[in-house]
Amino acid sequence: MQNAKLAAKVESQKHSVLQLTDSVSVGGEDLLIVGGPCSVESLDQMETVAQQLSGSVQALRGGVYKPRTSPYAFQGMGQDGLEILNTIRHRYDIPVVTEVMAIAQIEAVADHADVLQIGSRNMQNFDLLKAMGEIDKPVVLKRGLAATIEEFVMAAEYILAHGNSNIILCERGIRSFDSYTRNVLDLGAVVALKQITHLPVLVDPSHATGKRELVPDLARAAIACGADGLLLECHPVPEESVSDARQTLSLEDMNALVRSLKPIAAAVGRSLPVARRPKSEAPVAMAQ
Amino acid sequence: MQNAKLAAKVESQKHSVLQLTDSVSVGGEDLLIVGGPCSVESLDQMETVAQQLSGSVQALRGGVYKPRTSPYAFQGMGQDGLEILNTIRHRYDIPVVTEVMAIAQIEAVADHADVLQIGSRNMQNFDLLKAMGEIDKPVVLKRGLAATIEEFVMAAEYILAHGNSNIILCERGIRSFDSYTRNVLDLGAVVALKQITHLPVLVDPSHATGKRELVPDLARAAIACGADGLLLECHPVPEESVSDARQTLSLEDMNALVRSLKPIAAAVGRSLPVARRPKSEAPVAMAQ
Amino acid sequence: MQNAKLAAKVESQKHSVLQLTDSVSVGGEDLLIVGGPCSVESLDQMETVAQQLSGSVQALRGGVYKPRTSPYAFQGMGQDGLEILNTIRHRYDIPVVTEVMAIAQIEAVADHADVLQIGSRNMQNFDLLKAMGEIDKPVVLKRGLAATIEEFVMAAEYILAHGNSNIILCERGIRSFDSYTRNVLDLGAVVALKQITHLPVLVDPSHATGKRELVPDLARAAIACGADGLLLECHPVPEESVSDARQTLSLEDMNALVRSLKPIAAAVGRSLPVARRPKSEAPVAMAQ
Amino acid sequence: MQNAKLAAKVESQKHSVLQLTDSVSVGGEDLLIVGGPCSVESLDQMETVAQQLSGSVQALRGGVYKPRTSPYAFQGMGQDGLEILNTIRHRYDIPVVTEVMAIAQIEAVADHADVLQIGSRNMQNFDLLKAMGEIDKPVVLKRGLAATIEEFVMAAEYILAHGNSNIILCERGIRSFDSYTRNVLDLGAVVALKQITHLPVLVDPSHATGKRELVPDLARAAIACGADGLLLECHPVPEESVSDARQTLSLEDMNALVRSLKPIAAAVGRSLPVARRPKSEAPVAMAQ
Repeated sequence: MQNAKLAAKVESQKHSVLQLTDSVSVGGEDLLIVGGPCSVESLDQMETVAQQLSGSVQALRGGVYKPRTSPYAFQGMGQDGLEILNTIRHRYDIPVVTEVMAIAQIEAVADHADVLQIGSRNMQNFDLLKAMGEIDKPVVLKRGLAATIEEFVMAAEYILAHGNSNIILCERGIRSFDSYTRNVLDLGAVVALKQITHLPVLVDPSHATGKRELVPDLARAAIACGADGLLLECHPVPEESVSDARQTLSLEDMNALVRSLKPIAAAVGRSLPVARRPKSEAPVAMAQ
Repeated sequence: MQNAKLAAKVESQKHSVLQLTDSVSVGGEDLLIVGGPCSVESLDQMETVAQQLSGSVQALRGGVYKPRTSPYAFQGMGQDGLEILNTIRHRYDIPVVTEVMAIAQIEAVADHADVLQIGSRNMQNFDLLKAMGEIDKPVVLKRGLAATIEEFVMAAEYILAHGNSNIILCERGIRSFDSYTRNVLDLGAVVALKQITHLPVLVDPSHATGKRELVPDLARAAIACGADGLLLECHPVPEESVSDARQTLSLEDMNALVRSLKPIAAAVGRSLPVARRPKSEAPVAMAQ
Repeated sequence: MQNAKLAAKVESQKHSVLQLTDSVSVGGEDLLIVGGPCSVESLDQMETVAQQLSGSVQALRGGVYKPRTSPYAFQGMGQDGLEILNTIRHRYDIPVVTEVMAIAQIEAVADHADVLQIGSRNMQNFDLLKAMGEIDKPVVLKRGLAATIEEFVMAAEYILAHGNSNIILCERGIRSFDSYTRNVLDLGAVVALKQITHLPVLVDPSHATGKRELVPDLARAAIACGADGLLLECHPVPEESVSDARQTLSLEDMNALVRSLKPIAAAVGRSLPVARRPKSEAPVAMAQ
Repeated sequence: MQNAKLAAKVESQKHSVLQLTDSVSVGGEDLLIVGGPCSVESLDQMETVAQQLSGSVQALRGGVYKPRTSPYAFQGMGQDGLEILNTIRHRYDIPVVTEVMAIAQIEAVADHADVLQIGSRNMQNFDLLKAMGEIDKPVVLKRGLAATIEEFVMAAEYILAHGNSNIILCERGIRSFDSYTRNVLDLGAVVALKQITHLPVLVDPSHATGKRELVPDLARAAIACGADGLLLECHPVPEESVSDARQTLSLEDMNALVRSLKPIAAAVGRSLPVARRPKSEAPVAMAQ
C-alpha cells in the first residue's frame, strides 16, 4: 500500500469527516444511513420514500443512470430522474446520492444531487475517476466486484490525486463461488480500510447479499465492526421494484432496522442522529 | 437445500441448544466464547491460558493434531497434548475443544476432551463424518475453504444421519482473490445458516483474517449478526506461538475483547455468562 | 515451494516415468488415457466399456466408493464394485484406477485395482495421505477444489515423505465465480506443475467442466500444453449414468476424441500407444 | 443467455469472419496472431518489433493509454504513441491494435489504429461500450477480471446493439485464489464462447499467467481448443519493458512460439497465414 499517499491514514489525519450538506456529515461520531430504491421510478415513489423514512435516514439514494448487464434492460430514467431527485432534496431538505456512469453525466448530476456515486463496474474506469477529481462534491466509490483492498484504495487515490478529497468508500460484496448469496460481504475489508485509510467507509448489505432477509443482521454487523454508515435499498412496494426487487426492504422494515441499530452504535461509541422533522411538513402545518 | 432433512429448521425445532458440559451450553441465550492457542505446547502454557481467561471464556481450545500444509511442519503434540487438555479441563472445570483428523484418533480424543472439532480440510472427509455420527459428544464442524453453504449443511447432515445430533457449525473464512486477509469472513453465511438450520453457529475470526488487528472488530460483527459464539486464538506470548502467531491475540487483548462484546450481545438479545471462579482456586482458598 | 524436497524437479530427476503395469506407464513419451464411468454400476456395464474402448484407452476408471455431497445420494457399490474391477482388469489385461476415501479401504482397493485415487475433497486428508505413503502402488492425487499449486505439491510431498514415490498429479478444475461451467480447468497449473515437479500430471476435463460438449476441446488443449494424459468419464448410455451424467461422453464420442488427440500429441513430441487387442478376445478366437 | 440476440450463434450465422484490413482477417480458417509490447515506448522499439516479427504475426499490439492501478504509475505515451503506431502500420503494412480507455479517445485512436481494444477493467463501462457501437472498426473486447461468461457476452451485445458488429472477444484470465499465476486462464470459457456465439475469440496467455515461462504451453493449448488467435506480449529487451516485464517474451521466443503453433493449428483444421515480406523492405530493395 506504499503508493497510497493521500488516502493513507497518517498521524495528522486519522479520520476524515466529510460534509454532505451543512447539517449532514459522515466519518464522525454520527453514523450516516442512506436509504432509497434501486431506481428512481416516479416523483410519487420518491415522495413516499422521503416521507416515510424522514425519521430514520440522513440521506436518500436512487439510481437514474443504471449499469445493467443487458442492453435491453431498463437503463434508468436519466435526466427526468435527476429532476425528481432535485425536487425531493429541496422539498425535504435531505441530501441525495446517485450514480454517475460517464464523464458526460457529471455536470448534470452534480447540479441535481449532493453526492455522486461511482458504481462497482466503474471502480477502475480511470478517466471517470480523474474527472471526479475535478469536482468538489462528495463521491461514494463502490468496491469493484473482484477488486483487492489495495486496488480499491488506489482507485480512491486517483480521485484524491486529481484534487477532490471528499471520498467515501463503500464495501458492497465481492464475487465468490457460492451462489446462495449474490456476493460475499467482506467486513474484514471494512475493518482493514478503517485501519489503513482516513476515509469514511460505508457498507451496502443489499447488493452484497441480494436477499432482503439477510440485510438487517448484516447491517448490524457492519455497524458493530466500525463502518461509518450504510447504504440500503428500500421501496414502498418491494416486489414492484423495477430492479433488484429481491434484495429490497419495505419502508416499515427499513425503519425497524434503523431503530435496531441504536444500541449497536452505542456499543461501539457511535450514534444515530436524532430524527428530523421534514421541511415539507412545516408549510403544511403553517397553512392550517 | 431439499436434502437437509435433519439439519433443516422446522416449526418444531427452531434453535437447538446443546450442552458441552452440565453448566456450559451453546445455541441458547448465552453466547459461547472459546479461547486458547492454535497448538497446545505445554502444561504451563495451558495453565496460564486457563487462569487468565477464567473470567471471560466458557471453553478452551488448543490443537494437538495439526493439519499442516507441509509434512515437515510441526504436526502437534498428539497424545501428550491430549493429556494436558484432560488435566486442564478437570483442574479448571472448563470444557475443552480440540481437532480430530482421523477416525483412529476419535476414541482417545473423546476420552480427553469435551468437544471434537472437524477442521476445514476434512469438512468433506465423509468417512470421518460418518464416524463422528457414532459418538455422542458435541462436534464443531468447520466450513471448508471453498465449501458452499449447501455443502456445509450437507456435511453436518452426514453426522446427523449417522446418529449424532450435537453439531455446532463454524464459519472460519473462505478462499478469495485478495491476499490482504488470509481468508474472507463470510458473515452472510452465518445469517443464512441461522435461518435455514436449527444448529448453533460459531465464528472464528482468527483463521478468517490471519491478522490479529482485524479480529476484535470482526468478533463484534459476528455477535451483532446473530452468531452463537466465537472461537478465538490467543496465547500468553503471541509472537512465540508455534503456529499461526500472526493472528493470535494476547490474553489481555482477549479479555478486553470479551468485555467489549457485552453491549453488542445485549443489543441483539443475547448475554455473556457471568465470570466463573475457576475450581482450582478453591483449594488455595480452603488452605487459608 | 521451498519445502517440496521430494516432489521438486531437480537436475537428476526431471520427469518420473511410473509403471501402472508391466506394459502401461505414465510420464514418458506415451500419453496415458484413462476412461470409464463415474460409478461402477454392473459387470455388464464395465464389460461394454472395456470392450468398446479397447483400442483407445490404456487404463479404465470407475468409482466404487463415491464422495457425495448428500448422505442420501448413491454412495457407490463398495466391495461388489471392487470385484467387478478385479474381474475386468484380469479379463481384459488393462489396469484400473479407483478412488479410496478412507484408510480402512486401502488394503481391499490395493488388492483389486492397479492405481488408487485420492479425490479432491481428500487432498488434504493428511492421515489418508500418510497411509498412501505406506503402499507401493501408484496413486492419482487430484487437486482440491480450492487448493493452491503449492498446497497441491505439498500434499504429494506427504505421500512421498512417507515412502511412496509413485505419485501422479491430476488437475480437475477449481472453484470459481461462474456457474456456467462446474469448475474452471486451470491448465496454467498443469504447465506450472510440469515445470516445478518431476511428477506426471493428468487432466480431468469431465469434472472440470461438468458439460460433455466442452470436454473434447479441453482434452485437446490439455495434451497441447504438456499434460501426460487424461482422465475421462464415459458410459455406454450417458444419460442413464447414476452420477455425473451431464458430463459423461458416449463410448463412440470417447473413441473419436482419442483419435483426434494423435496429431496434437505428435505436435508436442508425444504419442498415443498403439491399440491393444484385448486379452479376452484371444480365447474366444482360439475356441473356434 | 436468452438476451443475447445479436451475439448468439444461429443457424444463419455460425462463425463471423471479420476483416482487420483488406488482407488480414479473424474468425476464418486462418489464425490471427497479434504480438507486441505492453506499452509503446518509442518508434525505435516498435520498428524493431515490426521487423523481427514480420514473418510470424499478422497484427501488432502496443498500449498508449494504460489502465494502471496507481495514479502515479506510467500512464502511457498517449497521442505521441498513437503517432508511432500510425507510422508503423503504414510503413510495415500491418494492422495495429491498441486500447481505448475513454470516449474522448475513440476518434483519435480510430484514426491511428486498425483495431480498438476495450480492456478488462472497462468491460462493463457501458457508456464506452455504447460509443464503440457507433464506430465501424473492429473492437477487441477483453473479459473482465471476474466477469461471468454471460456478462461477457452481454457486454459484446451492448456494442452490437448500438450498431457495430465487428466484435472480437478475448479471454485473458480470471481472478482466483492462487497467487502463483497472476490470473487463471479459463479455456473452458473459450470453448463455451465458440459454442454459444458466432464471434471470433482470441486468447491472451501473457496477462493470464503473468509469467513468461508459462506462455508458450498455454498458447498452444489455446489453439488446440479452438481459439481464433492469440494476443501475446513481447519486447526487444523484455526485462527493460516499462510495464508487465515479467510476462513478456523476447522476440526470438515469440517467433519460436509461433512456429510451434503450426502443427497444432493443422491438427484442429486451422492454419497460420504465410509469412509476409514487410512492405518497408521493398523500397529498400528497389533502391539498390
